[in-house]
Amino acid sequence: MGLVTTATTPTHPLVEKHASALDEAAAALAARSFYTRYPESPSPRVYGEEAAGRGKAAYEAHLGKVFAALGDQPTDGATVGDEVSPYGPALGITYPHLDVDAAIAAAQAAMPAWRDAGARVRAAVCLEIVDAINQRSFEMAGAVMHTTGQPFVMAFQAAGPHAQDRALESIVAGLVEQERVPATVVWEKPAKDAPIRMQKDYRVVPRGIALVIGCNTFPTWNGYPGLFASLVTGNPVIVKPHPRAVLPLAISVEAARSVLRDAGFDPALVQLAAEADGEGLAKTLAERDEVRIIDYTGGPGFGAWLEENGAARGQLVYTEKAGVNSIVVDSTDNLRGVLGNLAFSLTLYSGQMCTTPQNIYVPREGVETDEGHLSFEEFGQRLAGAVQRLTGDDAKAVELLGATVNEGVRGNASGLAALAQEAGGTVVLDSREVSHPAYPEAVVRAPGLVAVDASREDVYTQECFGPVTYLIGTSGTDQALAQFRDTMREHGAMTAAVYSTSEEVLEQAREAAADAGVALSENLTGPVFVNQTAAFSDYHGTGANPAANAAYVDAAFVASRFRVVTSRRHV
Amino acid sequence: MGLVTTATTPTHPLVEKHASALDEAAAALAARSFYTRYPESPSPRVYGEEAAGRGKAAYEAHLGKVFAALGDQPTDGATVGDEVSPYGPALGITYPHLDVDAAIAAAQAAMPAWRDAGARVRAAVCLEIVDAINQRSFEMAGAVMHTTGQPFVMAFQAAGPHAQDRALESIVAGLVEQERVPATVVWEKPAKDAPIRMQKDYRVVPRGIALVIGCNTFPTWNGYPGLFASLVTGNPVIVKPHPRAVLPLAISVEAARSVLRDAGFDPALVQLAAEADGEGLAKTLAERDEVRIIDYTGGPGFGAWLEENGAARGQLVYTEKAGVNSIVVDSTDNLRGVLGNLAFSLTLYSGQMCTTPQNIYVPREGVETDEGHLSFEEFGQRLAGAVQRLTGDDAKAVELLGATVNEGVRGNASGLAALAQEAGGTVVLDSREVSHPAYPEAVVRAPGLVAVDASREDVYTQECFGPVTYLIGTSGTDQALAQFRDTMREHGAMTAAVYSTSEEVLEQAREAAADAGVALSENLTGPVFVNQTAAFSDYHGTGANPAANAAYVDAAFVASRFRVVTSRRHV
Repeated sequence: MGLVTTATTPTHPLVEKHASALDEAAAALAARSFYTRYPESPSPRVYGEEAAGRGKAAYEAHLGKVFAALGDQPTDGATVGDEVSPYGPALGITYPHLDVDAAIAAAQAAMPAWRDAGARVRAAVCLEIVDAINQRSFEMAGAVMHTTGQPFVMAFQAAGPHAQDRALESIVAGLVEQERVPATVVWEKPAKDAPIRMQKDYRVVPRGIALVIGCNTFPTWNGYPGLFASLVTGNPVIVKPHPRAVLPLAISVEAARSVLRDAGFDPALVQLAAEADGEGLAKTLAERDEVRIIDYTGGPGFGAWLEENGAARGQLVYTEKAGVNSIVVDSTDNLRGVLGNLAFSLTLYSGQMCTTPQNIYVPREGVETDEGHLSFEEFGQRLAGAVQRLTGDDAKAVELLGATVNEGVRGNASGLAALAQEAGGTVVLDSREVSHPAYPEAVVRAPGLVAVDASREDVYTQECFGPVTYLIGTSGTDQALAQFRDTMREHGAMTAAVYSTSEEVLEQAREAAADAGVALSENLTGPVFVNQTAAFSDYHGTGANPAANAAYVDAAFVASRFRVVTSRRHV
Repeated sequence: MGLVTTATTPTHPLVEKHASALDEAAAALAARSFYTRYPESPSPRVYGEEAAGRGKAAYEAHLGKVFAALGDQPTDGATVGDEVSPYGPALGITYPHLDVDAAIAAAQAAMPAWRDAGARVRAAVCLEIVDAINQRSFEMAGAVMHTTGQPFVMAFQAAGPHAQDRALESIVAGLVEQERVPATVVWEKPAKDAPIRMQKDYRVVPRGIALVIGCNTFPTWNGYPGLFASLVTGNPVIVKPHPRAVLPLAISVEAARSVLRDAGFDPALVQLAAEADGEGLAKTLAERDEVRIIDYTGGPGFGAWLEENGAARGQLVYTEKAGVNSIVVDSTDNLRGVLGNLAFSLTLYSGQMCTTPQNIYVPREGVETDEGHLSFEEFGQRLAGAVQRLTGDDAKAVELLGATVNEGVRGNASGLAALAQEAGGTVVLDSREVSHPAYPEAVVRAPGLVAVDASREDVYTQECFGPVTYLIGTSGTDQALAQFRDTMREHGAMTAAVYSTSEEVLEQAREAAADAGVALSENLTGPVFVNQTAAFSDYHGTGANPAANAAYVDAAFVASRFRVVTSRRHV
């Protein structure tokens, strides 16, 4: 218990360095206007002529080795790691296995100095970390491509700059929230004789150790918001990556530890808990009472366990699980735009985004378009054609599709005929096997479409992850909107969209989306896709339906990660 | 699904009426400075010459009758109610028993219009409700006195103006939080040719039905924060009072429903769920999936069940349970002030506040004071003397002590000798039975003091609710601070205090309080008591220890009660 003057503001050289960036980002977040710090283009004009080559080399230098950069983390001596690229090659990287007891002790020991550093110093250090990660975006692109199966450009953008912007968003959200609490106030209550005067000092304190449980498909994009929200609010973080996508978070943790060390803080504030496949380390860590915050992206079964286990321990648990993203097609004055936009949304990363549309409601009687009336079947054929055109050339297609991440996805993609038969539906477009010109072992699948009737809720209210989309025939837009609302409210969704030329239908769709608690994209026909959200402006998820209990990044995502402890005295 | 233009701001006559009050209160909350809207003095000069008499008559008019003012609530035809004043008389009031299915349907039906009214209209209506409740403060004082056992002035202040200020605090916290979300923005992303422009509308949506579970001792003070935080953020509220303290919340709900009706909203937004003792209605309601938010004050067993049940259902659960409030006495230059302040804190409402000190750590070697060195025993004797002086005159004492609320408290107060023997300690001051001059049946007990050794954690780390305080002998202030920190961190606490003339000890106490996650009062010797917190400035609880998972009122208490649903489109 050292002597600390709580009412003074701690400072650090990084505070001045990042002051304007933090202020700008905070203003953008408040306004929810366009803002980005990290350029999304992998162009040499942006990142430099040699960045791509250096990044590729840095990625390749990890292969077949022990990831030694975490060497000063407490380890039990074991190494783990059996990542295999969805494109074929085994990565051959092993990671030191964390000594959990020692890691927890180290995290706790690191906490007081980090707490006492104050919100602004923490935010500046966090931003320095993200800047350092940004410098490794090409290395990260390789790591993400070969653990998730994302195509290269997506791996660069989504796992690099877009994830980094989400991290910064999280940092400033946490900073703003903490700075809303005044450091000190003199409270003066009128009284008969002299007023009663008290000085009250308000101190932001962390909750304790935070655990981030990464997923296989978006280790950084889904990992950073929780990681930086917890870190900026004073909590040490243990990052438990998915055993098949360790490297992207290992690089991130290495960068964080290096910046923390250079900034004079204990690198134990961010630790990597790599595990062997099937080890169950996430459960082991979640069962530790020292863990006070958990951020999880993954399947609903373990997510529900984490929520209940966490409630029993007083942990704060943020989960993103599964859902049935839905689209209502009512009418359009730009059919080509609709088809192109939808085809791209379904194709991107073979539908392996938590935001990819799964259920597309189309009236059985068809759709009015600028190219005339299309029957349900015709609309399906036109969409199938758009997908086929976009993915017809293998060499080009793989740059959008990437590779399938696991056997579950491959099974879903292969089972369309059986699925259609069981559902009393038809295969409108089978999921085509695509050959990857550079990686012959990669299993690459283009989107498939299955037509089913709206009565078959047993089929389409379950998440079918990967390149499978249902075209759901309805009695009309009214039934479509009702199913759209009810299925998302009950089964969750991260995204929703509507196509209509009728302002009344659009308004009804807004009401349905509000009732279901899901964000709505209207008439997307251009370069914005329903499965993409922009940091600082679009909330990722709403927390208002079963797909996720949190949104990236609203105040609710950060406000509970710290607490305020007052000390008051007469003056 | 009606046509609503989401980007326009709804208005209402009450918005203008309350605009400046809401702005002032919001500014005070942001600054955490002194603010009150509702005068705490029951003086005729403040509330009018006839207010006290009218309020008493209004209270008495309820006795022996059916509480008919909720008559348009859906009821299953039963009436319930067996409130008995801790001062003796049975109240004889019965309440219509809610038809739960119909009530839930009514609440859900009322929600869309309330949601679409917008945050500012909701806040203005909520403030109008609190103003209406304020007009009934004397009636409320009677209702609270005769359900909780609080003495009259406390029943007036704590259950009236102080609770009303906490309600207003909650309203403006919710308002500010919702207004941080812009209604609409045009997002413009630079692109090669023309920029990409989208209009994004952000709509605040409620989570669903909120359940408030009231407690026996502070039905309004602990009930209003959750009630108004949920209501102002768009959620209909079902209020389930403690079966022995129904009337205060029945009056509150009646006032809310009347204002809602007059303001053009559905009174089903606030409903009372009175139950028979032992009926278990709180559990029945908590098991409904339509219930999305729960605020609970009460015992830790049911609180833990609510948290786990809520996690399984995705409910947001705020609980305030039990703790071991602690004080470290190290030294003082104002012994009379210390003793007077402590004696009052222990005496107020016979220690039946969730904020009353339970554990007072005193060095075995004694305390340095302005009246010389006092041994542990001498300090105990002096504190006992101060309590005796304050409570020696029965007629005056009952105005501070009130009456014991239930058999549990009476058992604790009667068992001091046995407790001391079991704990290897001594009874420093027995809990005196006080005769109430006006209510001979009331069981009134003055504070008792039991000296125990610091080694007997088995005794003093359990909450012993009521007029029982432990004087814990320690090897010195270092041990005292260590126990102070560890016991509150593990077992929870709502309040803590320290007395010391040493700046170093005070700083150590601040560190210990920060580690334990409890607010600290330093050297209180005047008219501010450790068990009192002021709305707009002091947080009630921190949410950082097991006593409560929330604080009245921080951003975390309101930010998760609503969600934001975006709709976006190209413009």
